[in-house]
Amino acid sequence: MNKRMISYIVGSVLCVEAALLLLPCLIAVFYQEKSGFAYLFTALLAGAVGAICLLYKPKSVVLYAREGFVAVALSWILLSFVGALPLYFSREIPSMIDALFETVSGFTTTGSSILPNVEALSYCNLFWRSFTHWIGGMGVLVFILAILPVTGGYNMHLMRAESPGPSVGKLVPRVKMTAKILYSIYFVMTLIEILLLLAGGMPWFDAVTTAFGTAGTGGFGIKADSMASYNSFLQTVVTIFMILFGVNFNVYYLFLVRKPLQALRCEELRYYLLIILASIVLITFNIQGSFSSFYQAFHHAAFQVGSIITTTGFATVDFNQWPEFSRTILVLLMFIGACAGSTGGGIKVSRFVVLMKTLKKEIEHFLHPRSIKIIQFEQKPVEHLVLRTVNVFVVAYLLILAGSVLLISLDNFDFTTNFTAVAATLNNIGPGLNGVGPAGNFSQFSVLSKMVMIFDMLAGRLEIFPLLLLFTPATWKKS
Amino acid sequence: MNKRMISYIVGSVLCVEAALLLLPCLIAVFYQEKSGFAYLFTALLAGAVGAICLLYKPKSVVLYAREGFVAVALSWILLSFVGALPLYFSREIPSMIDALFETVSGFTTTGSSILPNVEALSYCNLFWRSFTHWIGGMGVLVFILAILPVTGGYNMHLMRAESPGPSVGKLVPRVKMTAKILYSIYFVMTLIEILLLLAGGMPWFDAVTTAFGTAGTGGFGIKADSMASYNSFLQTVVTIFMILFGVNFNVYYLFLVRKPLQALRCEELRYYLLIILASIVLITFNIQGSFSSFYQAFHHAAFQVGSIITTTGFATVDFNQWPEFSRTILVLLMFIGACAGSTGGGIKVSRFVVLMKTLKKEIEHFLHPRSIKIIQFEQKPVEHLVLRTVNVFVVAYLLILAGSVLLISLDNFDFTTNFTAVAATLNNIGPGLNGVGPAGNFSQFSVLSKMVMIFDMLAGRLEIFPLLLLFTPATWKKS
Repeated sequence: MNKRMISYIVGSVLCVEAALLLLPCLIAVFYQEKSGFAYLFTALLAGAVGAICLLYKPKSVVLYAREGFVAVALSWILLSFVGALPLYFSREIPSMIDALFETVSGFTTTGSSILPNVEALSYCNLFWRSFTHWIGGMGVLVFILAILPVTGGYNMHLMRAESPGPSVGKLVPRVKMTAKILYSIYFVMTLIEILLLLAGGMPWFDAVTTAFGTAGTGGFGIKADSMASYNSFLQTVVTIFMILFGVNFNVYYLFLVRKPLQALRCEELRYYLLIILASIVLITFNIQGSFSSFYQAFHHAAFQVGSIITTTGFATVDFNQWPEFSRTILVLLMFIGACAGSTGGGIKVSRFVVLMKTLKKEIEHFLHPRSIKIIQFEQKPVEHLVLRTVNVFVVAYLLILAGSVLLISLDNFDFTTNFTAVAATLNNIGPGLNGVGPAGNFSQFSVLSKMVMIFDMLAGRLEIFPLLLLFTPATWKKS
Repeated sequence: MNKRMISYIVGSVLCVEAALLLLPCLIAVFYQEKSGFAYLFTALLAGAVGAICLLYKPKSVVLYAREGFVAVALSWILLSFVGALPLYFSREIPSMIDALFETVSGFTTTGSSILPNVEALSYCNLFWRSFTHWIGGMGVLVFILAILPVTGGYNMHLMRAESPGPSVGKLVPRVKMTAKILYSIYFVMTLIEILLLLAGGMPWFDAVTTAFGTAGTGGFGIKADSMASYNSFLQTVVTIFMILFGVNFNVYYLFLVRKPLQALRCEELRYYLLIILASIVLITFNIQGSFSSFYQAFHHAAFQVGSIITTTGFATVDFNQWPEFSRTILVLLMFIGACAGSTGGGIKVSRFVVLMKTLKKEIEHFLHPRSIKIIQFEQKPVEHLVLRTVNVFVVAYLLILAGSVLLISLDNFDFTTNFTAVAATLNNIGPGLNGVGPAGNFSQFSVLSKMVMIFDMLAGRLEIFPLLLLFTPATWKKS
């Protein structure tokens, strides 16, 4: 284990976070809020610790897969811990476990909140909450790869550990350039959304934080009713951008390099849009009785479907009150999740497509035992290794799901609350049903349950293996 | 597709069922019940149709895997349909869909009931309900293989389609002999249970039907309170026998041929007992507050754990009233299920063990990428084909689970009711939680939901693939 290299990476993360913490400081200066000192203090602390880590240059930059994964897991845990400090120091979230829950929920782009009344927070804290979504959406290590002079051929492991999906493709041969392109697309799309929201009459602070929440597919709002009080145009803009940020960023890159046909041939994109369309149609018909017009039903169905499948978690209505059929569709969408290579969470559409294809192949194999068929996805054969990791991912995922539901059932809430609370955190959605529906929050859970869900949010965002490796004793043995 | 051979097999099944239908006739004669005529009439009908099928001898006895699977699926559907007729003709279950639900629930050893008051049924109907558990437990085609002069080397496909577990091992080289041994063990164990129940003071009719329900891990009771009103000794006997019938029958065979050490080395058996023990301990501590003594809590925890993990479904208390932690343990046990090669349902302990081992292997592969490790189970390497089918089984299983929960959510019951209703039918348990808890029943569901759950029960008992093949259009194309 190249511990020096790991501490060097973690140190870089802390230094970057120190710089990022200065942004809410500026917000605090603008609004003249005392909570800004909490950010300044934390930034200095993080910067100092980070700088110390950077002093010890690693002797070797060799980084094996397991070290890359462990470095990413540790970085995210430390990032969250430091990010929680200003919320705690400012006394606006007086419990450290709650502050940590809220920050992990932010960085992992979950959006589950322990706040009974979000509108009581100061502007700098509201800004930071939403900003963590934006940082976590594309990933902090991808950011570091994009801006810092990190060299060596081992950066791919860092990117692989932080990027969602069954397999990570580099857009261009160099990792650094890939990271730069990804962040540029991300930045420009966020900017366009901000401008559209401003054009629709949203105040600038709301526009920026809402765009952060949409871009990272996070879901923290700055209003108690999430997106319900904004006008129909603004809700529509958010609907469209949520769906756009749930698309694999490779698709946008292909458009940029003028290969639109290749972009539109993306199989995952087509299944993703098909699932969205089918869900919107089914829910629209199911809920239309409770809306004044068919269009209203369609509008809110589209918003909620876009919000849940992309694992954002914004809401324009309390979908917990919807008929069970619509509620069940939303629960299923929670598990499907967005596309690989997007900022969204969940199991990912591509994994589902690959799994469905293995099922189809197995049935065909039954009918024609001597036929040999290779599973194709995105016009390429799926490698055995990818198939195996997809299967193992599902196994690990289900085990964590079952174990988490069991542990939080000790709090004695109802099964639907427990099941959807875990589904909402493990898939990085935000709200669930019943006690954790859009009108509820996560404050009622015990410390143990909150710790379980903090683990689930991190496991969901980093797609399980980095966290599993971190907690495997054999990882730390000398080989 | 060798249609003649399939119709020959289905014909044999009908003839056997005609003979079996005469048993409730005898019960009706004994209790002088008019409902007996419904059984006589159905027996004659089934015998006549079966005999016609047998008249057309197949030209070739060649039976490929897909034909074997289709034959088994068709046999089970017809078996259930014919078995439902006397319940319907006797007007004791006046709706045909309800009669079919009840019979499928019987043959698949589920034990979910649509009867609001089971004690209103006549003795012959009560007997038939429980007897279907006994027939379905070991399998009707295994029975035919054991008693009828069916020849040819293709019988293994029939046995494979009907026997639960990821891979079916023959006890002895000949399929016919294997089937005979299995049924002999099954018969003797059932007899011992009947004798013990009689010794404990149970009336003979109760003893026979209870033993049928236990042996098939079915769960139909003849009392409204299931097993609650029987004395503690009888409940303990049932607890022990439920757990015994959830064990792979290979273990008993090894004992019979005096290889006890080999029997005890069975890995699946050890995990099965470990899960049972852990669940009993956790639930005992969780529920002890509501019982007069620690022993009482242990006694009822053991009964319910044994009942759910073996997918029997008997109850001595209304576990729907238990704390959420205990309820959640029971829901998880529903999915784990019993051992392969037993009469129990669920995903099976062996599949879980194999899946856990793939996860462990993947983590080791991460740590030591160049190491090559082969997964061992029951002291043998697991073949790639078995791994693949286990993975595909889980995929198909989850898809059916999700699709079923979505379809029955149209009835607008709560999520816990829907989820556990599907879990209880797909895993062949019987009761679930909330609306379908031990004190509830399945009568409130719509016809669509009942059809979905009939499919689920059959898919669970036949482990999905026979039913999937039946509904795949390509199966019926000429190759």
